Amino acid sequence: MTLSVNLNADMGEGFGAYDIGNDDGILKIIKSANIACGFHAGDPLVMRRVVERAKAEGVSIGAHPGFNDLWGFGRRRIDMKPYDLECMIAYQIGAMQAMAAFAGEKVTHVKPHGALNNMAAENEEYAMAIGRAIKAVDRDLIYVALSGSEMEKAAVKLDLPLAREGFCDRQYEDDGNLTSRKVPGSVIKDPEVATRQVVEMVVEGVIVSRNGKRIKRRVDSLCVHGDEPTALALSASVRAGLEAAGVKIVPLTEMKLN
Amino acid sequence: MTLSVNLNADMGEGFGAYDIGNDDGILKIIKSANIACGFHAGDPLVMRRVVERAKAEGVSIGAHPGFNDLWGFGRRRIDMKPYDLECMIAYQIGAMQAMAAFAGEKVTHVKPHGALNNMAAENEEYAMAIGRAIKAVDRDLIYVALSGSEMEKAAVKLDLPLAREGFCDRQYEDDGNLTSRKVPGSVIKDPEVATRQVVEMVVEGVIVSRNGKRIKRRVDSLCVHGDEPTALALSASVRAGLEAAGVKIVPLTEMKLN
Amino acid sequence: MTLSVNLNADMGEGFGAYDIGNDDGILKIIKSANIACGFHAGDPLVMRRVVERAKAEGVSIGAHPGFNDLWGFGRRRIDMKPYDLECMIAYQIGAMQAMAAFAGEKVTHVKPHGALNNMAAENEEYAMAIGRAIKAVDRDLIYVALSGSEMEKAAVKLDLPLAREGFCDRQYEDDGNLTSRKVPGSVIKDPEVATRQVVEMVVEGVIVSRNGKRIKRRVDSLCVHGDEPTALALSASVRAGLEAAGVKIVPLTEMKLN
Amino acid sequence: MTLSVNLNADMGEGFGAYDIGNDDGILKIIKSANIACGFHAGDPLVMRRVVERAKAEGVSIGAHPGFNDLWGFGRRRIDMKPYDLECMIAYQIGAMQAMAAFAGEKVTHVKPHGALNNMAAENEEYAMAIGRAIKAVDRDLIYVALSGSEMEKAAVKLDLPLAREGFCDRQYEDDGNLTSRKVPGSVIKDPEVATRQVVEMVVEGVIVSRNGKRIKRRVDSLCVHGDEPTALALSASVRAGLEAAGVKIVPLTEMKLN
Repeated sequence: MTLSVNLNADMGEGFGAYDIGNDDGILKIIKSANIACGFHAGDPLVMRRVVERAKAEGVSIGAHPGFNDLWGFGRRRIDMKPYDLECMIAYQIGAMQAMAAFAGEKVTHVKPHGALNNMAAENEEYAMAIGRAIKAVDRDLIYVALSGSEMEKAAVKLDLPLAREGFCDRQYEDDGNLTSRKVPGSVIKDPEVATRQVVEMVVEGVIVSRNGKRIKRRVDSLCVHGDEPTALALSASVRAGLEAAGVKIVPLTEMKLN
Repeated sequence: MTLSVNLNADMGEGFGAYDIGNDDGILKIIKSANIACGFHAGDPLVMRRVVERAKAEGVSIGAHPGFNDLWGFGRRRIDMKPYDLECMIAYQIGAMQAMAAFAGEKVTHVKPHGALNNMAAENEEYAMAIGRAIKAVDRDLIYVALSGSEMEKAAVKLDLPLAREGFCDRQYEDDGNLTSRKVPGSVIKDPEVATRQVVEMVVEGVIVSRNGKRIKRRVDSLCVHGDEPTALALSASVRAGLEAAGVKIVPLTEMKLN
Repeated sequence: MTLSVNLNADMGEGFGAYDIGNDDGILKIIKSANIACGFHAGDPLVMRRVVERAKAEGVSIGAHPGFNDLWGFGRRRIDMKPYDLECMIAYQIGAMQAMAAFAGEKVTHVKPHGALNNMAAENEEYAMAIGRAIKAVDRDLIYVALSGSEMEKAAVKLDLPLAREGFCDRQYEDDGNLTSRKVPGSVIKDPEVATRQVVEMVVEGVIVSRNGKRIKRRVDSLCVHGDEPTALALSASVRAGLEAAGVKIVPLTEMKLN
Repeated sequence: MTLSVNLNADMGEGFGAYDIGNDDGILKIIKSANIACGFHAGDPLVMRRVVERAKAEGVSIGAHPGFNDLWGFGRRRIDMKPYDLECMIAYQIGAMQAMAAFAGEKVTHVKPHGALNNMAAENEEYAMAIGRAIKAVDRDLIYVALSGSEMEKAAVKLDLPLAREGFCDRQYEDDGNLTSRKVPGSVIKDPEVATRQVVEMVVEGVIVSRNGKRIKRRVDSLCVHGDEPTALALSASVRAGLEAAGVKIVPLTEMKLN
């Protein structure tokens, strides 16, 4: 039996005259793109362009909704009512679907952005609100959820297709949570260390915490970054390492989920 | 043979803490709602609420996209590239579709708002850009176009379902264009005059200009307003007058178009 | 010796085509206006118009900065860095000063809005950031701060003119904090009860908690509301009650502060 | 007698997570900075940072107001009423003044951005609206106006300090207007050609059109660009050429204007 895993990345995060990130570089490495939907970043032109590029690379299309805060790039926590959040997420998914339609493509997954992703990982109400929005718009959409988070539970409860997400460039605590970025060393910069971590995740189904504790954790999709030259190199190394270990890198739509 | 016509109105034009218009009143009169999509007005909550109310009244759902100018309420002309406009329109239609999905409803028509509607009536490139956006998202969507305008031509060219629109409360020039609002008397306030005008439009297929010239013009849908008490009364009178003349008022989805 | 107190109210909270509140009514009752600055509400036209009206009524002009969240009307907590907040507040004060200049008026006080006001009341970093912004723009600006809050302390620390604020239509806890709106009865609707409360505050310098505890608390300015007919009536009653008790109602600029 | 001229450039046009342009490079060449005010670009943090950098380089501070269109970067024409424009410009100048106050600096000039600058150059009502806004906020502010434009006339009419602006990297028509960017060669890329053009402007008070016609035209300030490596090189060359011709490069505040 061949193991497979998905690689995903956030993209389409420019806006108007502004460009950011390295979408073209990262599209060669990943298999699923989380495309900003115009609230924390992205505009209709950027969205359409990234869909077309993703299609050309055989990368599946996802909505990457965020808070309505372009100034803060969606990285500031905003205290919204779950109902309002639910509406806001659906709005962004629908907008993304329309932009995908230009290329004859379909949106097949949803992954929240930035502060919203962090809040929904911890907060059941947020996680459920996002799940209800996904379900209302298209119940076949895959909910990309941090493995072990409230989002994972919400996807299960709502019977939504679920992709459990892991990180290649972040350390973990003994309880399976991500180590805070404030802790020195929490962001992994060494491609070899990152590659070893993801191979363990995918091949053995185990996350090894920074203290050496082995935690059983299923990971269907790995988040990679391409916004800095080193991040792109690390991502490429992770992909090569997985392939060398016999793991196939596939779009979320080809993963056997749930 | 029974004649039918559609009555449409713009609605869902509140935003956040702000309310505007009289959606509940006008929903009792019309059969198709043009719902603001969050750019010139509307927010995801307003959109969802209006969809639910429209559904309860048997009113069909339309997207009412406008310029990205909440401050100007979409009434200021903005000089956009047709390609950018095309993307912007698709984005708004998609967002509207997602909000309709919460109520299990479908968006079935598109009518541009305010300054965008005025520009697209005169400008072929704008009219076509809107048409291409509609076609990309869902080629069954009805393009609501001022009768005789560039939008009508664009819908025909793109082979889109087309509803030709007429006005009950505006005078016309001899060439079939609307008389400028700056001309005294151009906005009709007398319910009797408005009713006579629409009955002629629908029953005889004729617009009578303010100089008395009779212009052949097909009208499938009449735009009514509900934002002032007198507008609401005029709209109700127009509807009653049409029904008294044996005309059936139906949703756009029940009109025989093209 | 004659006692005096200020009455303030939030206003200019419309935006573009949207109107809200009853600015004309409340301007007859108050002596200092907190004018929204375009972020949570207000636009340059609204700001200018309200300044002119306030001037005509002898009401002093204040900036009422809020979070950059028109959709949420500044009522959603946003997690900003204090430095960013400091910049955002200064920006809004400066904008308000320019709009006041059209009428030859000066901005003489600053009061934060909504969620920002609530956060700054509890959070020293926020309270200080707002204070530093005020001081940078104009060190003679009066910082209107909930009596007993972190904002009061920040104003003292930064040596800024300080107006301690009290509420006429809210109950207090034994520790001097406002009773949560979730507690039944916490919002006072009875004009007599409100009037008794403010007279005690101003004449005796005492807040009586809902359990009857008497707390020493200085109050220089009372916040009133005019957004509902009952609120306007309550405000008028409070003013009449204060005057009947011999208290003079004056602009913040005529109060003896600090 | 020593000739002097000013060099100005647009800057501070990033926003939130987005950076654009080469502010640090261009600040070494110019003497007056036109800083975006948060509408077409810029945010309170960017504004404050650029003020501090400009101060450190001895560069005078200007407001660079634009249309309320971040998506379009202020490059799309928006049809505003002159009164609304007047309010919008004052708002932005005031905001800029507050951000300058953090550094103990004063805003000393105003130059409109992009589509607004183009419209105001041709349209008397726009040019006057901008002038009235400047005058209301601070009648000592210098109005930077394309030489020969409606803005120049408005500044004269309103008796505002006026700096007539010329371009180093654009060809001119025989009537003194800029050659359209659509005409091949209209954008000058050759540093030598640009340098010759500006020396003629400053030393002889003459613009030489692309057909060789010599037009009398006073130029107090030259606009340079730094957004591309070649633009920065051209700007540096222009400055060196002027200095070689004995022209002193000074801040607008040291120019003898009107």
